[in-house]
Amino acid sequence: MTEWRKDALLDRWVVVAAERGKRPGRFMPPEEKKIDGKKCPLCEHHEGETPPEIFACRDCRDNVRDCPGWRVRVVPNKFPAVRMEGFAFPEDTGVYQSMPGIGAHELVIETPEHGAALEDLCKSQVQDVIRVWRDRSRELGRDSRIKYIQVFKNFGSAGGASLEHSHSQIVAIPMVPFHIRDKMANLERHARAAGRCILCEIIAREERDEIRVVAGNDSFLCIAPFASRFPYETWIIPREHQPDYGQIGEEQAADLAAVMRFVLKRLAAALDRPAYNMVINTAPVNDHVCDTTCFHWHMEVLPRLSVAAGFELGTGLFINTVSPEVAAHQLRCTV
Amino acid sequence: MTEWRKDALLDRWVVVAAERGKRPGRFMPPEEKKIDGKKCPLCEHHEGETPPEIFACRDCRDNVRDCPGWRVRVVPNKFPAVRMEGFAFPEDTGVYQSMPGIGAHELVIETPEHGAALEDLCKSQVQDVIRVWRDRSRELGRDSRIKYIQVFKNFGSAGGASLEHSHSQIVAIPMVPFHIRDKMANLERHARAAGRCILCEIIAREERDEIRVVAGNDSFLCIAPFASRFPYETWIIPREHQPDYGQIGEEQAADLAAVMRFVLKRLAAALDRPAYNMVINTAPVNDHVCDTTCFHWHMEVLPRLSVAAGFELGTGLFINTVSPEVAAHQLRCTV
Repeated sequence: MTEWRKDALLDRWVVVAAERGKRPGRFMPPEEKKIDGKKCPLCEHHEGETPPEIFACRDCRDNVRDCPGWRVRVVPNKFPAVRMEGFAFPEDTGVYQSMPGIGAHELVIETPEHGAALEDLCKSQVQDVIRVWRDRSRELGRDSRIKYIQVFKNFGSAGGASLEHSHSQIVAIPMVPFHIRDKMANLERHARAAGRCILCEIIAREERDEIRVVAGNDSFLCIAPFASRFPYETWIIPREHQPDYGQIGEEQAADLAAVMRFVLKRLAAALDRPAYNMVINTAPVNDHVCDTTCFHWHMEVLPRLSVAAGFELGTGLFINTVSPEVAAHQLRCTV
Repeated sequence: MTEWRKDALLDRWVVVAAERGKRPGRFMPPEEKKIDGKKCPLCEHHEGETPPEIFACRDCRDNVRDCPGWRVRVVPNKFPAVRMEGFAFPEDTGVYQSMPGIGAHELVIETPEHGAALEDLCKSQVQDVIRVWRDRSRELGRDSRIKYIQVFKNFGSAGGASLEHSHSQIVAIPMVPFHIRDKMANLERHARAAGRCILCEIIAREERDEIRVVAGNDSFLCIAPFASRFPYETWIIPREHQPDYGQIGEEQAADLAAVMRFVLKRLAAALDRPAYNMVINTAPVNDHVCDTTCFHWHMEVLPRLSVAAGFELGTGLFINTVSPEVAAHQLRCTV
């Protein structure tokens, strides 16, 4: 049985998803499995090997579900951490709170082509992926039990990827997570005290200083953040104050595709295709308590070049061995 | 230059320690380097290869510093994340706060013997290590610039260890870290609301329920915590409400050595010597603002069997694929 449990000391939820232990390579795969397209369940012509599709971008409207002919395909995760069953009411028994492991867990297959990395896809294909993230986020947010939608991508085994075929994931959960709650609180506090959004202020300052800018276009600025946790960490931030990723328009989607491709190509060139995680931080949904308009969504690209160890796990603080200024310079200049 | 920088969004500090990049195996060593004792800088007779020793346990008082004859030896980290230089006053320039990278970073060499794991050492040797952690913590806490002392151990390359010879680390820092601040706040809130310490309540409940108990003796209870973040995570908690690890007495040190050896031996047997991190969470020092007496120190043993990936980095929440009840049963019963 899958269950949400709360750590009373950190006021933080954990999913205990014992079923997920059944997936292949249960613990720390020493290497991401290299399988050829003939055996890959995410490839075109293998649609029967995944659970039935939830959504797909197809060129031809006559195409049949779960059949070839798609550009981007969304399926339920075969080994979901959470499932959309039951109610989101915590059972409170003193210091131990728990509730059924409700939520949704979807896989976004970013291309039918095995072996193509996200940054190798053409701009319109990346734009399709960005639109799918947005549309699935909106759709999942219609369920009032859902309070947060996490879009993320794991690349490489050090990034926790268990399948080589290019994909990302969407997890919808029944609570506002730890980090988002803290970011909301700090954004709200700063807005009250200084009358400005922290991220709007960061955009203005980085444009002026230039030293931490990696790339930019009409809609987005990409920087190596001042207090980067990871070597070569970058954030892609919408220039306009926009709380929710689900609000992005077509022009923004095109601009985001351009910046994402640029940054991932530069990272691949500078660091020999490092493992990375990509996460979108966005405003909570169905929140009738907090002022979610103070949120300013952003995407974090987090290369996994070092291991977060005892110091990081004990304190929640990070030690970063590459200054963001050096990282930004290198990413700007690597061809 | 090493610098503390604050992430305004998460209100969390990061050490940008560019110098540390110079250490061997700068990024993610694919394998922990297996070197024989003849080339290991932490071995007896190689004392000249480390910075001069800060402290050592020796059988014979006539023994000379930085010479053989020690049981446990403390040296400064050769590639320190922080150094005891400068003042701990943040420079506040709007959303970007920074200050010099002050702090201390020490290496505790747990045995002169190369290749012996912590749990293989005899009980009195482990007790020596525990005493050294305590005495160095007390000593480092005498500097009023220091606000927190993190004792931790990284084992195995997936745990971030770069040297095979059994060692742990102590990092003293000029601020109360993210996790400790949150734990303090929750402990204080609960104490005010319920009149009890969360960890004292957990001890009482776990003793009654039994299903998550791994081991225990007069001074300590070891449990798989209700909301374990990692498969086979365990916490060693003093039965007595004690805020600060630096307060432990001789009997407690002996009892802690017994529980630590037991748990590490069981983990090694059940999971084939997994990589792990061990961290002590304790009350801040030199804190004249918060009521640090509400803290209840504890040690966390965190096996690194899976990779924290995009979901965990984005949300701060964890997905755990082994229920703590199953883990506790397995650790109790593995011989």
